[in-house]
Amino acid sequence: MKDKFERIRVIGFDADDTLWINETYFRDAEDKFTTLLEGYEAKNTSDQELFKMEMKNLGLYGYGIKGFMLSMIESAIDLSNGQISNKNLSKIIQLGKDMLEHPVHLLPGVSEVLSQLQRSHRLIVLTKGDLLDQERKLRKSGLEKHFHHVEVLHEKEEGNYSKLLNQLDIDPAEFVMVGNSLKSDVLPVIALGGQAVHIPFHTTWRHEEVGDHESENDYLTLSSISELPDYFKSSS
Amino acid sequence: MKDKFERIRVIGFDADDTLWINETYFRDAEDKFTTLLEGYEAKNTSDQELFKMEMKNLGLYGYGIKGFMLSMIESAIDLSNGQISNKNLSKIIQLGKDMLEHPVHLLPGVSEVLSQLQRSHRLIVLTKGDLLDQERKLRKSGLEKHFHHVEVLHEKEEGNYSKLLNQLDIDPAEFVMVGNSLKSDVLPVIALGGQAVHIPFHTTWRHEEVGDHESENDYLTLSSISELPDYFKSSS
Repeated sequence: MKDKFERIRVIGFDADDTLWINETYFRDAEDKFTTLLEGYEAKNTSDQELFKMEMKNLGLYGYGIKGFMLSMIESAIDLSNGQISNKNLSKIIQLGKDMLEHPVHLLPGVSEVLSQLQRSHRLIVLTKGDLLDQERKLRKSGLEKHFHHVEVLHEKEEGNYSKLLNQLDIDPAEFVMVGNSLKSDVLPVIALGGQAVHIPFHTTWRHEEVGDHESENDYLTLSSISELPDYFKSSS
Repeated sequence: MKDKFERIRVIGFDADDTLWINETYFRDAEDKFTTLLEGYEAKNTSDQELFKMEMKNLGLYGYGIKGFMLSMIESAIDLSNGQISNKNLSKIIQLGKDMLEHPVHLLPGVSEVLSQLQRSHRLIVLTKGDLLDQERKLRKSGLEKHFHHVEVLHEKEEGNYSKLLNQLDIDPAEFVMVGNSLKSDVLPVIALGGQAVHIPFHTTWRHEEVGDHESENDYLTLSSISELPDYFKSSS
């Protein structure tokens, strides 16, 4: 594996659940949402119906907290058969606002790893979701200084990566993507001839889960970002 | 004025209400919103309160339809003193979804002007708002082929322009920005040494209005984008 990374000049980092905690706050909000709806439906049912609503609206709303808020509201109206109180709907709006204003908590080792790698490589952030929200989190994170470029994509599929690498004049063979999602960070980058490092986060959104995949030999899996710098030292 | 444009190599276009109709759909939705609330408040009051709510939430939500939807919902709960029915809230959500799915209507002359100018200049789109929504509108517009680069900013202020021009390696002295908003398209670009063309749209969102400004001699005002190509022919 170390040999593979010798050619790498640019390292792309996913942000949510790779640099900082994110999914946990969605899980917390979902839990509060299903608790609010307990008078109408079992928590498990509400949770499933909310996910279905999010999937139904994903093409229209895209990723991010605002779309999640709108899906929670619509789902609450459905689950309660139009009976949910304005007061509880206000609480749902507040759940989303709290998420938007949440402090950014970096994952362990992130600052140190970025400081170290930026001396030898060009570092970029490639994230998806809401533009304002992602830029705000990056600002709050204090990590901006490590990155040469930040790109928020509306979707992280092979075509989006390809277009962006081309625009930034990056040869895929010199690029490695680091992230927690096989679907968004690993598989599309391998497909276009780049390298990838998978660092699983303890929670994965159902939408980001992939079935069996046979390409496990094509990418590196680490348990923590702190292990990353070791793989870029092969030339010494 | 024609002399000023001789050095121009890159033309930036705003999108909403410069290339295609946008503000009109917000006005329509506001009208339907205030009609829904008529049982609780006079239309004029509801309209003012909705605008206040949008301004209150702007820092958190940013520009775009999803934030507008959330502000309508929150405002409806406030204006009705927590009495608005789930049915009417569903109608408000549908108002927003209809906006997101609305076909794109180009302003007159846009296709022809872009076809003509792209032969002699690099054309880029600089818009603000929701990433997914702006990319969707551009795709629906059929105008993508004219543009060398598309950038969705979360805010169009001098600093954002400066950073972007630097990133795209564009000298402000060789750049002109074309748009309907003095606040977002004209004044910040002039401030950093670029040129600007103001093409007012018949409706301007209150948030985009500016007070008296003394710089009217610093930019060109046109009544239609069709007049634009004439100003780039000075060298012939």
